[in-house]
Amino acid sequence: MTPIVCFISDFGLGDTWVGVVHAVIIQTRPEVRVVDISHDVEPFDVRRGSILAASAVIQLPGLVHLVVVDPGVGGSRRDIALGTANGTVLVGPDNGVLAAAARRCGGVVEAVALDPALLGRPEPLPTFHARDVLAPAAAVLAAGADMKSLGESVDSASLAGSAFPPAWKEGDWIVSEVLDIDRFGSMRFGITPEDLDGTTQPGGGIDVSSGHTTLHIRFGRTFSDVPEGDPVALFDSSGWLTVAVNGESAVERYGFEPGHPVRVRPAP
Amino acid sequence: MTPIVCFISDFGLGDTWVGVVHAVIIQTRPEVRVVDISHDVEPFDVRRGSILAASAVIQLPGLVHLVVVDPGVGGSRRDIALGTANGTVLVGPDNGVLAAAARRCGGVVEAVALDPALLGRPEPLPTFHARDVLAPAAAVLAAGADMKSLGESVDSASLAGSAFPPAWKEGDWIVSEVLDIDRFGSMRFGITPEDLDGTTQPGGGIDVSSGHTTLHIRFGRTFSDVPEGDPVALFDSSGWLTVAVNGESAVERYGFEPGHPVRVRPAP
Amino acid sequence: MTPIVCFISDFGLGDTWVGVVHAVIIQTRPEVRVVDISHDVEPFDVRRGSILAASAVIQLPGLVHLVVVDPGVGGSRRDIALGTANGTVLVGPDNGVLAAAARRCGGVVEAVALDPALLGRPEPLPTFHARDVLAPAAAVLAAGADMKSLGESVDSASLAGSAFPPAWKEGDWIVSEVLDIDRFGSMRFGITPEDLDGTTQPGGGIDVSSGHTTLHIRFGRTFSDVPEGDPVALFDSSGWLTVAVNGESAVERYGFEPGHPVRVRPAP
Repeated sequence: MTPIVCFISDFGLGDTWVGVVHAVIIQTRPEVRVVDISHDVEPFDVRRGSILAASAVIQLPGLVHLVVVDPGVGGSRRDIALGTANGTVLVGPDNGVLAAAARRCGGVVEAVALDPALLGRPEPLPTFHARDVLAPAAAVLAAGADMKSLGESVDSASLAGSAFPPAWKEGDWIVSEVLDIDRFGSMRFGITPEDLDGTTQPGGGIDVSSGHTTLHIRFGRTFSDVPEGDPVALFDSSGWLTVAVNGESAVERYGFEPGHPVRVRPAP
Repeated sequence: MTPIVCFISDFGLGDTWVGVVHAVIIQTRPEVRVVDISHDVEPFDVRRGSILAASAVIQLPGLVHLVVVDPGVGGSRRDIALGTANGTVLVGPDNGVLAAAARRCGGVVEAVALDPALLGRPEPLPTFHARDVLAPAAAVLAAGADMKSLGESVDSASLAGSAFPPAWKEGDWIVSEVLDIDRFGSMRFGITPEDLDGTTQPGGGIDVSSGHTTLHIRFGRTFSDVPEGDPVALFDSSGWLTVAVNGESAVERYGFEPGHPVRVRPAP
Repeated sequence: MTPIVCFISDFGLGDTWVGVVHAVIIQTRPEVRVVDISHDVEPFDVRRGSILAASAVIQLPGLVHLVVVDPGVGGSRRDIALGTANGTVLVGPDNGVLAAAARRCGGVVEAVALDPALLGRPEPLPTFHARDVLAPAAAVLAAGADMKSLGESVDSASLAGSAFPPAWKEGDWIVSEVLDIDRFGSMRFGITPEDLDGTTQPGGGIDVSSGHTTLHIRFGRTFSDVPEGDPVALFDSSGWLTVAVNGESAVERYGFEPGHPVRVRPAP
């Protein structure tokens, strides 16, 4: 297997930071390939970074995911690496940005606080741990290093909590929040197939409620399962329950707000 | 030759999709290098995707080009791979997005409808064939797989037609459309050196007409062949007839609209 | 060492250009890895390109940096490669875009005017030397080619000057300009640790003056050295003196204008 580091950050593409991290990973372990997931996270938006990471790991399990949204860089928060139940490795600051991804990988089975000295970087620049600690750690972990060789074990109970919670039940409703709106205007909710527990299937329907709007929507497999301009509910490639409109923007029609609560129930 | 997959999509860079396709290609054939042409195509804009693909293949012939603008994903449209006369391979949905590129490669000589089962992906996610069908196909084709091993042959006459037509003649005019405006404000038309048939050369001139505007413009080799602020017509790196202004934006001065008709004739 | 080409341009990500340059580098020398620093430079903005290049080389010394902001492409300006005192190699047009980076690498020790014929590209397209001259040169230089094999030596005194000057002293003030505002709203000045000559340290302070505003700011190591919402001065990862606000945007608070003069003095 070619080792791969998947990389998410709030660095944008207008500065040197993303390229510098790529170069450091290549210089640390030339056999590693770096795959950019997205660097378009708004500055300091830990919640958005954690949603993207949780969306990436479900599609790319078993790889190393480097996730850098790090308003406290150089301060008291730890740099951490997490081993998870399905073999995915997460590297980033201990500020909650990794928590939802870890949950989707079956939970944390091993956690270490990265020690720059063990990475040969005894004096990391306090403003750029991504370059001096996290990227080298991601590179050596992708290349097969033992996590224990990079720092002291950390009690996983001490890790920062998730920026967004798992879905929960209220009567026959599943409650979560609007995670985001994708580029095509589809509205994604923090609800997984497991949350809906097999109660929905293509051809069935669901009620979806957020703010003052309640919709009854047919459940499908893909956008074009319904006529053009019709809404459809499906699980998208990130494994989130999604409301789309075939060939159009669902958010322009329904206007659900990212971060707002959403409630869903099967309604054949 | 290092195998290369060139990748165009309407995925943007804010979501997980581009990175996931990269990772799938690397996991499928580690020796393949993925080159991003652009993911900035507006959602569902098949015409724009086809222009970019046609611009890329003229500069990177002989490579595999993966082009994903796919509003009908998971529906009845086919996933296809096209072998062309100059050895370039095109992979994408059969919705016309590959047609102009195929034309510029000398035409289709072989076409197959990709069979997910033959790619080891019997149940592709209906919303993400790029990940589950097109990317793995592009990877194995770049690595040298025989197109016939990936699916049934398709009659090339059955392929979806181009989102934009080749140029044609009306008297002494060549008629086409404004393809796009580039980042530097230059206006590109769907007219190739062959369309103008050697009748223009540096030092000569052309008449260019679109909407209510008709211009007489000197033909050149590069922007700085004319004084700063002067217009120049040339064939740009994509092989399209282009009107630029040295050091400034041609579209700000002349305002040609992308998608509108344009007519050109040699006029020494 | 895996050879790396770092790549800066004003090409944006909406056209074919960046991808084409990547492919040409890979086709020229498959062992080279291409790292994108940024392509978000405004069209023709040589000053911005030179700032990014100077920011990149301080973090990635010893690599090949390809810097293409080239309004005069195909005209009389030369394509050049520069060897510098610290082993960094710079490749780009001779229009000043490389000068500040060369200065930060200890100065030019070798300069050649690239000869397309020696690169096996006797007729480069006059509008796209990045593809036909600069990228192949960067690839072979990264792979270890002798600079002398690529063209005639050039007197370094004949090279175009920098788009922005080094800092200078006026009494006890260091004078420079506001280089840019980063994505997080931090304001960067063209002042290096050497310019301040060790007179500032964490815990000390500086006076910073631009336009009608003069600030007294605590000097720190990282953003979170001060309480949230407080300003801090530090040297950022690019080695520029930077004024940030912990967790907020410094430019929203203080409004320094990029390109405007700024004056700084130690003030414990």
